[in-house]
Amino acid sequence: MKKFMNTAETMVAESLDGFVRAHEEFVVFGADRKFVRRRHLIPGKVAIISGGGAGHEPMHIGFVGRGMLDAACVGHIFTSPTPDQIVGAIEEADTGAGCLLVVKNYDGDVMNFEMAAEMASSRHKIEMVIVSDDIETARTQDGRGRRGVAGTVIVERLLGAAAEKGMALPALKALAGDLSPRVRSMGVALTGVTVPHTQRSTFALGPSEIEMGVGIHGEPGHEREPFSSADAIITHLSETVFKEVAPVADKALLFVNGLGGTPPAELYLAYNTAHRFMTDHGLRIVRSLVGPYATSLDMQGLSVTLAILSEEELLLWDSPVATAALRWGC
Amino acid sequence: MKKFMNTAETMVAESLDGFVRAHEEFVVFGADRKFVRRRHLIPGKVAIISGGGAGHEPMHIGFVGRGMLDAACVGHIFTSPTPDQIVGAIEEADTGAGCLLVVKNYDGDVMNFEMAAEMASSRHKIEMVIVSDDIETARTQDGRGRRGVAGTVIVERLLGAAAEKGMALPALKALAGDLSPRVRSMGVALTGVTVPHTQRSTFALGPSEIEMGVGIHGEPGHEREPFSSADAIITHLSETVFKEVAPVADKALLFVNGLGGTPPAELYLAYNTAHRFMTDHGLRIVRSLVGPYATSLDMQGLSVTLAILSEEELLLWDSPVATAALRWGC
Repeated sequence: MKKFMNTAETMVAESLDGFVRAHEEFVVFGADRKFVRRRHLIPGKVAIISGGGAGHEPMHIGFVGRGMLDAACVGHIFTSPTPDQIVGAIEEADTGAGCLLVVKNYDGDVMNFEMAAEMASSRHKIEMVIVSDDIETARTQDGRGRRGVAGTVIVERLLGAAAEKGMALPALKALAGDLSPRVRSMGVALTGVTVPHTQRSTFALGPSEIEMGVGIHGEPGHEREPFSSADAIITHLSETVFKEVAPVADKALLFVNGLGGTPPAELYLAYNTAHRFMTDHGLRIVRSLVGPYATSLDMQGLSVTLAILSEEELLLWDSPVATAALRWGC
Repeated sequence: MKKFMNTAETMVAESLDGFVRAHEEFVVFGADRKFVRRRHLIPGKVAIISGGGAGHEPMHIGFVGRGMLDAACVGHIFTSPTPDQIVGAIEEADTGAGCLLVVKNYDGDVMNFEMAAEMASSRHKIEMVIVSDDIETARTQDGRGRRGVAGTVIVERLLGAAAEKGMALPALKALAGDLSPRVRSMGVALTGVTVPHTQRSTFALGPSEIEMGVGIHGEPGHEREPFSSADAIITHLSETVFKEVAPVADKALLFVNGLGGTPPAELYLAYNTAHRFMTDHGLRIVRSLVGPYATSLDMQGLSVTLAILSEEELLLWDSPVATAALRWGC
């Protein structure tokens, strides 16, 4: 296993150190380095707090800053942050208007964020939003519902923008609930990933195999298929997400997310196919995002996320954002 | 070979289509789709034009927009654009103040840009800047000088910023000449790359080998070494670039560039080591850039670029830029 790391035990902390050093205009470490927070917190603004396992960078640390997150808690690789970390973030980031916790739908994350919310509830107003945009897990019917994957980026951006404009906690919670059924994602992998601690690949693919419907923790998908063409693969992803959200409206954001090991040129080629599919089916793609935003270590693969957005949500998307990974308007 | 592509013949065009669709607020295709140009050209501003082979995305197309490039010409994978493409870009992008061609130091690129400059010289004022920031090729003494690699991003940003502020062609040429010896890069690969047309890997590495001093076209480096730790590898790269530029001044931009297949988390870990080395050796790292900006298809690897910048150059770096890959201040 060749990775740019020193030891499996220190790699998350060293990477996080590098991140904070590289982006000190936006972020600082919180107390005891338990989380990363926005350098300049805004008094009276609802704090948007997220977090999850490491290995998905830039999610969520790369979204800390003006117009997105106020704090992000990072666990070990593919492991939830502890309640203690999350409580620390709540205590430091809440400037009086309460906290909205944005949590991807995984048992460990949901449990630890809920525990933290309970621990801090006597001193802070707290609401929680569960992101569950992944098509694939809806099919497995294991009772856990959809996973939260790349669509989290869009949810965090819109909630962050609304909070920055002064939206109160109950309205933010309602916005998330309203948005949720209109954001759907599906992923495909060309390779599995090797988790540094175990040095084991989460699933192994042959030289001509792909895995359809993967998660961002090396979860296998629903089907192993022979590698065909980008058009066939991306059309399948596009059609699947389209069918789930299309009836709602006509203006959409299309997001092709790299899973870590896939270069920009391939992501743009995939975007081209997805864009053609959506416009051929009557959607107007009015915003786009292409790049590695919610990764799975060095997995070669990508996901397609479709988000149907209202005019108000498009304005939120366009409003100023200044984070390591998304930045415009300021 | 699993890549998100349909055919080797169409992959560059399809990827380029996707890029232009995703970023139509910044760019449009030029005449006959020979190049990508800035959507809103500025009358009386010197046009900054670059280009090179495909496979390095987002370089150069991702740098087209306000405060950076006015046009970028894309050749086939790892192949120079034709003089015809470059002449087309000159004709469309020159709004009266002439053109500065920014060319990476490779025989094919230099030859074709020179030919284009000659073809267009009767109708346009043209100057050329050759970027040659790569440490490695200086050592091979094959008479061709250093290659242009990731440092090109910094050169194009500063020249683009200066042109946007109204700097005239001779002054831009002088700025590039002055900057050149203060920008140095060195790269390392954990894997070779497979070129789609040939389906061959440019060099093959064993499971515990790395290649020190690689270029961005799969050129092998000067030494194959056993994989050790990120600290050992990155310290070697950092020390090498530091020794070449350090005596000049104390404020620097540190840039860790991903070669396509290396995820953000590893790039940040590498940045951490490089940052520590530079600060331990008396440099003040006042600006940073971390991410895949000058890639080599899906190569797992990275490069470290160090640029010693004057106060004026730091102001240029900070000035507004609105491109697909770099965006701030607007």
